Amino acid sequence: MPLEAAPGPLERPIDLYFEDFRPGQRFRLGSWLVTEDEILEFALKYDPQPFHRDPELARTTAFQGLIASGWQTAGVWMRLYCEEVLLRSSSLGSPGIQEVRWLAPVRPGDRLTGEVEVVEVRPSARHRERGTVVMRGQLWDQMEERKMRMAAFGLFGRRPGSTTAEDAGGT
Amino acid sequence: MPLEAAPGPLERPIDLYFEDFRPGQRFRLGSWLVTEDEILEFALKYDPQPFHRDPELARTTAFQGLIASGWQTAGVWMRLYCEEVLLRSSSLGSPGIQEVRWLAPVRPGDRLTGEVEVVEVRPSARHRERGTVVMRGQLWDQMEERKMRMAAFGLFGRRPGSTTAEDAGGT
Repeated sequence: MPLEAAPGPLERPIDLYFEDFRPGQRFRLGSWLVTEDEILEFALKYDPQPFHRDPELARTTAFQGLIASGWQTAGVWMRLYCEEVLLRSSSLGSPGIQEVRWLAPVRPGDRLTGEVEVVEVRPSARHRERGTVVMRGQLWDQMEERKMRMAAFGLFGRRPGSTTAEDAGGT
Repeated sequence: MPLEAAPGPLERPIDLYFEDFRPGQRFRLGSWLVTEDEILEFALKYDPQPFHRDPELARTTAFQGLIASGWQTAGVWMRLYCEEVLLRSSSLGSPGIQEVRWLAPVRPGDRLTGEVEVVEVRPSARHRERGTVVMRGQLWDQMEERKMRMAAFGLFGRRPGSTTAEDAGGT
């Protein structure tokens, strides 16, 4: 388990609903130690380019050594985001990603940590029981070099009972 | 191995360089059978939300059953793109993704296939030996339901010798 703190339990009480997110709100993420084994395992399944799948071959490429697939780096961000936010939230999944930028290679031994910031909250016009939250995510390493930034959409359910109260208000 | 055709060798002759990509060019991808085991394995590592990590829990969610993490679906696209294009190319990695849209849930038993289309080619002003290609990717299932669309940037090296020839031309 490359998460550096013991991961929390997967089943948790839900205390983050759509109404609880505000633009500017920040969540500091935990950390993850990237290992060579993990880079190779991911690469051989999902992204077997020479600089991801084989340390020897990687030395002959422009990267001069093994680097993690950008999709794996995104996966690390996702796990840290789950631990800090999604597993205690009313998450209903995601319709997509606005952008991802891989700013610097991630290498074996890098300790990644990061942050998620709420950029925008959009109540759904069609589905009163949920809304979309735009989140900006970042990851950096132990030297504070920024490795990835991205922006993602998340769908979250409203707090149970809250739509009924609004409906009663006639809006 | 969930790739449905036997994967090609990982080491291949390079016959796709930056100069070989043209806007409008399309590559038909191979196919991948998504299994429950694979969905659970990915989820427990990178995206342990209830609808990704546990078939029983997933039944109680809005998705009414297990669905693959969108990041895993992106990984499937990446592997198919590697098999068809990147492993025979001068790929130098990617600076990022323009957007991803997960259009419908991917479930165990889905057979994914897709397409990659060249949208734009941009020679690098600073690095004469390479350029950026914008690729649009799509995945759909056995019922031709579209599951994902995305647009990604790829860096590719020029054909060896080609920059020298241009330099000699004085441009």
